[in-house]
Amino acid sequence: MALALAEAARGLGRTAPNPPVGCVLVRGGEVVGRGFHPRAGDPHAEVFALREAGERARGATAYVTLEPCSHFGRTPPCADALVAAGVGRVVVAALDPNPQVAGRGLARLRGAGIPVTVGVGGAEALRQQAGFRSLVTRGRPWVVYKYAVTLDGKVAAAGEGRGAVTSGPAWARVMRWRDEADAIAVGIGTVLADDPRLTTRGVEGGRDPRPVIFDPRARTPLTAQALRPGTLLVTAPDADTRPLEKRGAEVLRVTDLRDALHELGRRNVATLLLEGGPTLASALFAADLIDEVRALVAPKLLGAGLSPLSGPVRGMAEAALLHDPCAELLGPDVLVTGLLHDIPRLGAEGANGCLPES
Amino acid sequence: MALALAEAARGLGRTAPNPPVGCVLVRGGEVVGRGFHPRAGDPHAEVFALREAGERARGATAYVTLEPCSHFGRTPPCADALVAAGVGRVVVAALDPNPQVAGRGLARLRGAGIPVTVGVGGAEALRQQAGFRSLVTRGRPWVVYKYAVTLDGKVAAAGEGRGAVTSGPAWARVMRWRDEADAIAVGIGTVLADDPRLTTRGVEGGRDPRPVIFDPRARTPLTAQALRPGTLLVTAPDADTRPLEKRGAEVLRVTDLRDALHELGRRNVATLLLEGGPTLASALFAADLIDEVRALVAPKLLGAGLSPLSGPVRGMAEAALLHDPCAELLGPDVLVTGLLHDIPRLGAEGANGCLPES
Repeated sequence: MALALAEAARGLGRTAPNPPVGCVLVRGGEVVGRGFHPRAGDPHAEVFALREAGERARGATAYVTLEPCSHFGRTPPCADALVAAGVGRVVVAALDPNPQVAGRGLARLRGAGIPVTVGVGGAEALRQQAGFRSLVTRGRPWVVYKYAVTLDGKVAAAGEGRGAVTSGPAWARVMRWRDEADAIAVGIGTVLADDPRLTTRGVEGGRDPRPVIFDPRARTPLTAQALRPGTLLVTAPDADTRPLEKRGAEVLRVTDLRDALHELGRRNVATLLLEGGPTLASALFAADLIDEVRALVAPKLLGAGLSPLSGPVRGMAEAALLHDPCAELLGPDVLVTGLLHDIPRLGAEGANGCLPES
Repeated sequence: MALALAEAARGLGRTAPNPPVGCVLVRGGEVVGRGFHPRAGDPHAEVFALREAGERARGATAYVTLEPCSHFGRTPPCADALVAAGVGRVVVAALDPNPQVAGRGLARLRGAGIPVTVGVGGAEALRQQAGFRSLVTRGRPWVVYKYAVTLDGKVAAAGEGRGAVTSGPAWARVMRWRDEADAIAVGIGTVLADDPRLTTRGVEGGRDPRPVIFDPRARTPLTAQALRPGTLLVTAPDADTRPLEKRGAEVLRVTDLRDALHELGRRNVATLLLEGGPTLASALFAADLIDEVRALVAPKLLGAGLSPLSGPVRGMAEAALLHDPCAELLGPDVLVTGLLHDIPRLGAEGANGCLPES
């Protein structure tokens, strides 16, 4: 399954509204086929793996990171393809929360007499599929708040642009996250203070996420580096956006942040990487719209400065706990991650993506 | 040397103005004696180890965490005792920065024909001896700023007392630090908001550090839990402290923070654990008087709240870098530590407490 998850990872950021999926076929201890879903409209992971395996698929074990589909979408059902190829066993990391699938893929396999195991590598599969799962069950993206912060909790000095907080390895990790995200969001304050490019640099085969600027009054300068064809501009309903639209911006007129996320969902933004600043992040946090946190903590002290969050006001006992916290060293910095919401899964599914009855 | 360092650790917080020192004697692969310096006035570590070893000290290797002393203080020189006992070799973790020793202990041993190795376990020895080294070379304590902070950099909610930020394992670690510190400092704001006890709980054989309240205008309530016989009260020269003195407080009248630390040094405070709040910590940080940071980072988000530091104002490029940063998981929390100043050592001594020429 680790190989299948690695295959799936190759599609991260490229498959929306479809999930990133990987598939590996093993026969007699040998990998005979592998595949991943490269982007919506292309064949699914199973199809690539079955093509590579050819006749060797017969009797093989198929490791798939997501329940094979059972419905005719742009491609025929993968469950049927696995049955037709004569695979001997199917191991699935996580169930498909898509109401069109949701266990029917497994039922189809089992109905054809193929033994199915569910939940192997489920936790990592859920992580990979968080964006897809959010989109298909909630109609809005999985929102990841990424910030780099000093050990005394400052993301920037007061009144200056964003100086580098963390070091090289942290930067490289952020670039990977950008490559894997469908879109990257900043507030107008960050655009005016830092004029960020919001591009992916230093990742082999990397591509840029779609910039999203939360800019209620359409104050984005026409020269902003993040403004390019396809940039999404989230504004108030009455903002004058004509000059920005001429530069290629697509305007989302909304009345609140939840609407904004649903509009992004309609545009196939499954994973939204939120890179600041504190004003936008605090508003999303106060509205309980942040799903995951990735904090890069640098071993330095600033003193006065801006906090990654400046609201809402509440007591320490009411602080929002991160589920599944993890810490990892990145050069001199410490990456701390955690979830504010559970990754959407089927009601019957356990924490590891496993159906209790299976 | 690991055993000798463990011996030395038993004296942490109890030996000032002397250093915590451990000594282990090994002969033929067997530990024949061990000892540590329990407190000023008691015999040194070497004496206890030699007593236990008796005749078996002859030809043994002595592992000592600090250069054996060469001068007559309250006890005779340990270097002479080691020579007299006929030890065959001496391994020393770190040199003694005390100008009365500073290499003379080693010279004495070598002069008697005993081979000496320096620097084994030097880094850990320096850590253990930071307070002593600060006191003997700078005349003021080693100041450790400890704080517990949410992942968004808040030590407390605005306008409320200090709710618990971190969890059990972090609390236990803080109690150990209190047990190992000579004194524990808080600002008057913390006393008024939280009324902390500043005692050591849950540590077997633990003792309480001496409370130090930075309280320029002597506003500490007579009912404050931290106010007890021996509590040190740092005030402005003109504060009316009579009621507090009646309760047993010892008053240090100073004009600035550096003076305050020197006054603490005169009272044999070698290690000062600074537990907040942000006002006092920011003032000490702005004056460059914090030597070490121990930040307990909890995987939770608060929103609005108090920062561990609120000054001074400067750019991110001028942030104070922590040397030798370390990260460690403590239950769900992450402990990040680092140094703002080098631990005082002899000019010729390397980073590991080793003289290059030895």
